[in-house]
Amino acid sequence: MNDTVSGLLDAIEPVGRDPRSGGYRRPVLSTAELDLRSWFVQEAEKRGLGVETDRNGVIWAWWGEPGDGALVTGSHLDSVPGGGAFDGPLGVAAALVAVDRLRERGVQPARPFAVAVFPEEEGSRFGVACLGSRLMTGALDPDKARSLTDADGTTLADAYAKAGIDPHRLGRDDAALARIGQFVELHVEQGKGLIDLGRPVAIGSSILGHGRWKLTVTGIGNHAGTTAMRDRADPVVAAAEIVGLVAALARAEDDARATVGRFEPVPGGTNVIASRVDLWLDVRHPDDAVTRGLVDRIGAEAAGCAQRHGCKAAVVEESWSPTVGFDPALGRRLADLVPGAPVLASGAGHDAGILAAAVPSAMLFVRNPTGISHSPEEHVERSDADDSADVLADVLEGLL
Amino acid sequence: MNDTVSGLLDAIEPVGRDPRSGGYRRPVLSTAELDLRSWFVQEAEKRGLGVETDRNGVIWAWWGEPGDGALVTGSHLDSVPGGGAFDGPLGVAAALVAVDRLRERGVQPARPFAVAVFPEEEGSRFGVACLGSRLMTGALDPDKARSLTDADGTTLADAYAKAGIDPHRLGRDDAALARIGQFVELHVEQGKGLIDLGRPVAIGSSILGHGRWKLTVTGIGNHAGTTAMRDRADPVVAAAEIVGLVAALARAEDDARATVGRFEPVPGGTNVIASRVDLWLDVRHPDDAVTRGLVDRIGAEAAGCAQRHGCKAAVVEESWSPTVGFDPALGRRLADLVPGAPVLASGAGHDAGILAAAVPSAMLFVRNPTGISHSPEEHVERSDADDSADVLADVLEGLL
Repeated sequence: MNDTVSGLLDAIEPVGRDPRSGGYRRPVLSTAELDLRSWFVQEAEKRGLGVETDRNGVIWAWWGEPGDGALVTGSHLDSVPGGGAFDGPLGVAAALVAVDRLRERGVQPARPFAVAVFPEEEGSRFGVACLGSRLMTGALDPDKARSLTDADGTTLADAYAKAGIDPHRLGRDDAALARIGQFVELHVEQGKGLIDLGRPVAIGSSILGHGRWKLTVTGIGNHAGTTAMRDRADPVVAAAEIVGLVAALARAEDDARATVGRFEPVPGGTNVIASRVDLWLDVRHPDDAVTRGLVDRIGAEAAGCAQRHGCKAAVVEESWSPTVGFDPALGRRLADLVPGAPVLASGAGHDAGILAAAVPSAMLFVRNPTGISHSPEEHVERSDADDSADVLADVLEGLL
Repeated sequence: MNDTVSGLLDAIEPVGRDPRSGGYRRPVLSTAELDLRSWFVQEAEKRGLGVETDRNGVIWAWWGEPGDGALVTGSHLDSVPGGGAFDGPLGVAAALVAVDRLRERGVQPARPFAVAVFPEEEGSRFGVACLGSRLMTGALDPDKARSLTDADGTTLADAYAKAGIDPHRLGRDDAALARIGQFVELHVEQGKGLIDLGRPVAIGSSILGHGRWKLTVTGIGNHAGTTAMRDRADPVVAAAEIVGLVAALARAEDDARATVGRFEPVPGGTNVIASRVDLWLDVRHPDDAVTRGLVDRIGAEAAGCAQRHGCKAAVVEESWSPTVGFDPALGRRLADLVPGAPVLASGAGHDAGILAAAVPSAMLFVRNPTGISHSPEEHVERSDADDSADVLADVLEGLL
C-alpha cells in the first residue's frame, strides 16, 4: 500500500461538506456518515482486515483472528454540524496507514489487533456524546439510548434499525470489552498546546470533566404586534439574559468553560412572542465538584432570572462525564515510544476517555495550526497528518 | 346552506395541527395550506361562486360576473408556526357564510362581488408578511419576491411553480386592483380591546407601522471544551445581550413593541461555540419616525455590544410597512352598519392595511376571549364566530 493519511482524507473530502462554508455535517447514520462507514469497510477489506459491526454499532477491523486482550486503535467518523475535516477521520485514517507501516516493517502481531470506529462520538444527532463507548461500557442505559430522538423526531432505535443494526441488542458488551487489552486513540488537537510548544504530537494525560444540560425557559406565547411590552412573559428575553449569566459565572471560575451553542425559541416565528426556549449548556472543569457547583449556580440564577420575566426555567442533565485520567502505566510506555512528546490534558471528550473506565486507554494528539476545532478552520498540515501514522505505528509496534 | 362559521372551521380543524401543542403550522403553499385552499375552492363552488387564481396567487370566488369596482371581502389561510385556528380562516369562513346569509335575505348584488384569499399573509415561510397584497399593489418587487427563500432553501419562484402558479407573472396587478371597489377584511382580534369593552365586534381604525429586520452577529466558531472563556468571540453571548438591549430600548419608548422570536446560532451544535447568530427583529410603533429611530438605535447599540465581545453585528431590513389609517368614509359607513361597535387600532399587520394604499379598505375585529394570538391559546367563542357572519352580511348588504 502506498496510501498516506492525507491521501485517504482527500478521498473523503467532499462527503458531507457544505460547499459554501467548507464545514462538515456528518451526523451518525446520516447518508454522509454511512458513506464514510462504507469507505472505512472498503479500506479495511483492501488491507485484508476482517470487518464486523458489534451490537452497539462499533465497526471492528481485525488483523488476523479476533480475540481477547487485543491492541485496539481507532476513532470516529461522525462530525458536529459545521465541523472540520480531521476531528475523528484523522485517527481512523492514521490507524489504517499504521497497519500498512507495520506490515512494511515486517511486524507480525503477537496478539489480536484491531482498528475500531465508534458511532455518535459528537452526540450531534442524538444529544449524547461518545454514545457507542458509553453503551459498550454500560455508562448509558440502553432503554434511554433507544428512546433518544434527533431534531426530526426520529428515535435512535429507528435510526439503528434503518441502518441494519438491531436496536434491541444495544447495551453493555462484556465480550467486546474483554477483547480490548489496550486502546489508543489518535486525534487532532483541539487547542493550541502543540503550536505553543512547537511540537507535532502530544500524549494525552486526562480529559476534562464535562456534561450537557438542557435548560427550558417557559413563558407565554403571543402576537408580536398586539402585545404591549409590559404585558409580556417573553422566554427569549429571559433565556438571553440567562446566556449572559452562564458566561459570567464561567468566567468567574478559573479553568471553567460554559457554552450555549444551541438556542431554540419555540415556535420560532419572527412575528411571534415565543412560548418556550430550549437551550443547551456544555459545562467543563478539571474538578468535577466545581463543574457540578457551577451548573447548580446556573440553575438557581436561571430560575430567579426567569421569574423576574414572568417565566419559568428548568434544567435537565443530558449527559455527564467525570474528569478521566488515562492509564499511567500505558502513558509511560507511550512516553518511551514517542520520545520528547509533551503531555497534554484534553478539554474535549473522546471515546478513549469513556473506555478508560473499563480498559487501559491512551491518546495521541496531532498539531492543529489554527488551534480551532468544531469549525471549518480546524486544520492539520499534510506532513503532520502523514507523519502521525508513523508515530502511531511506533506506538503500536512497541505495544504489540 | 345551513353552514355556520364554527361548523366550517370544525371541518378544517385537523389541517396542519400539531396534536401535542394544539398549534397550527400552515405555511403558504405547504401541504396544509394547499389543503385549505382546496377546501375554500370546494366551499366556494358549492355556493356556485366562480373561482379563479390570479397571477400573484390570490384566489377569487365571484358571485356572478367578475368586474371592476367590486365589493370584496376575505382574509388568508396561512398561519405562523404554532398559530391559532382563527387568525385568517375566521375571515374566510365568515365571508362564505355571509354569502349564504345575503342569499337568504334575497339580496341580489347590484355590482360585482367576490371573496378573496391572500397568500403568505404571515410571512412565516418566505419572510415577507402580506406578500400577496404587496405584490398586487406593487409594494414588493417581483424579482425580489421570486428570489426569497424558505428555511429549506426553496425559492418562492420554485414554490409557486410547484403549486402551478407561473412565477414569471408575479407583480403589480392593475386589473386586479381595478376590480376592488372596496375591501372589507374580518379578522380575530389579537389583543384585549373587545374583552375590556365587553363588545363582540369592533371596526378597525388603523394598523401600527411595523417592519422586520435581520440582525446577524458574527464571531469565531470553536470547540466548547478546548477554548478558554477569555479566548472566545462567542456570537451567542453577544446576540443574547443584544436581545436584552432590544427589549430595554422598546420598553423605554411609549407604545413601542420590539420582539425577537427567531434566534438561530450557526452551526447550532451543543459542544460548538457558534460562528454566527441570525436573529430577527419585529419592531412596531404608531409613529413611523419612532419605529425607524428605534431600529437605528438598536443597530448602533448592537454594533457596540458585538464589538465588546470581539464580534460584528449588521442589520438588514426585510420588510417595512408604515402606519396605515383605513378609509375614513368607509369607516363611517361601517359605524352606521354595525351600531355601537367600538373603533380599535390594530397592532398586527393585515392585507387590508396593504390594500388601503390603493383601494378603500376596512376591517372588522371579532372578540378573542384570551386576548392571545399567534398561539394555540387564541380563541373565539362559537356564538361570536357564528354571529360574525351576520355582522359581516349586514356590512356587505349595506355597501352593495
